[in-house]
Amino acid sequence: MADILHRIGVVAEPERVYEALTTLDGLSGWWTEKTSGSVAPGGVIEFRFRPGGFDMKVVELEPGRLVRWEVVDGPEEWIGTFVRWELRREGEWTIVLFRHEGWREPVEFMYHCSTKWATYLMSLKELVETGAGSPDPRDVQISDWH
Amino acid sequence: MADILHRIGVVAEPERVYEALTTLDGLSGWWTEKTSGSVAPGGVIEFRFRPGGFDMKVVELEPGRLVRWEVVDGPEEWIGTFVRWELRREGEWTIVLFRHEGWREPVEFMYHCSTKWATYLMSLKELVETGAGSPDPRDVQISDWH
Repeated sequence: MADILHRIGVVAEPERVYEALTTLDGLSGWWTEKTSGSVAPGGVIEFRFRPGGFDMKVVELEPGRLVRWEVVDGPEEWIGTFVRWELRREGEWTIVLFRHEGWREPVEFMYHCSTKWATYLMSLKELVETGAGSPDPRDVQISDWH
Repeated sequence: MADILHRIGVVAEPERVYEALTTLDGLSGWWTEKTSGSVAPGGVIEFRFRPGGFDMKVVELEPGRLVRWEVVDGPEEWIGTFVRWELRREGEWTIVLFRHEGWREPVEFMYHCSTKWATYLMSLKELVETGAGSPDPRDVQISDWH
């Protein structure tokens, strides 16, 4: 098993970051404009990108502290993995600890997703701090795989 | 053991990316301006940043294909880990597979370094493609840990 880990700090209240992770408006402002579905506990959120997409089941929510999704549809390598967002306040910062966990093998696609997650986390930070992120299809291109 | 993985594509020949990873001029153009030491096989390169730095022993070099460093001094969590750069051509792209391997524990500092490596890889891409990267002290701030 292998995990993708990231850490960013956002100059804002944890509640504002939490909102960007748990509402369709928030999610479509930093990850992909094509976000739909149910953000309630047990609901499934559908994220669509130009090449395909992911369906995430909302498995844990603690307001201002934790968001956890299970990947229930998407690329074969992603199915059954979990995405975990842990938030905490540190002075004027909200620290975001991100983990995309449970990859069966460190395949090349995992290398790509790790870098791509980092750029989307920076997009989340920009959205909350400035009001404008860089979601798909306006995301940062990192390679031939986009 | 835990690894940080990343993948980027650079629109340039592998030799140009290799040069940015194996010369003081190249390295100081995307990672940190304060880069000194010996880039030859078996040499030690000293990378210095505002908060501290890393000493990397050059343990493997295959022109246009592979660069591998061993961390011989720096933060305790980094000592004994390895940084591996694998390059290959894909049409007009050079694909860079990056691995910072052998972390003993997935400590919070590893989360930070993973995201920070991603932004430095984007700086490497910019340097090779445009002639100007964003090395320390002009690097992208991602959090309170910089």
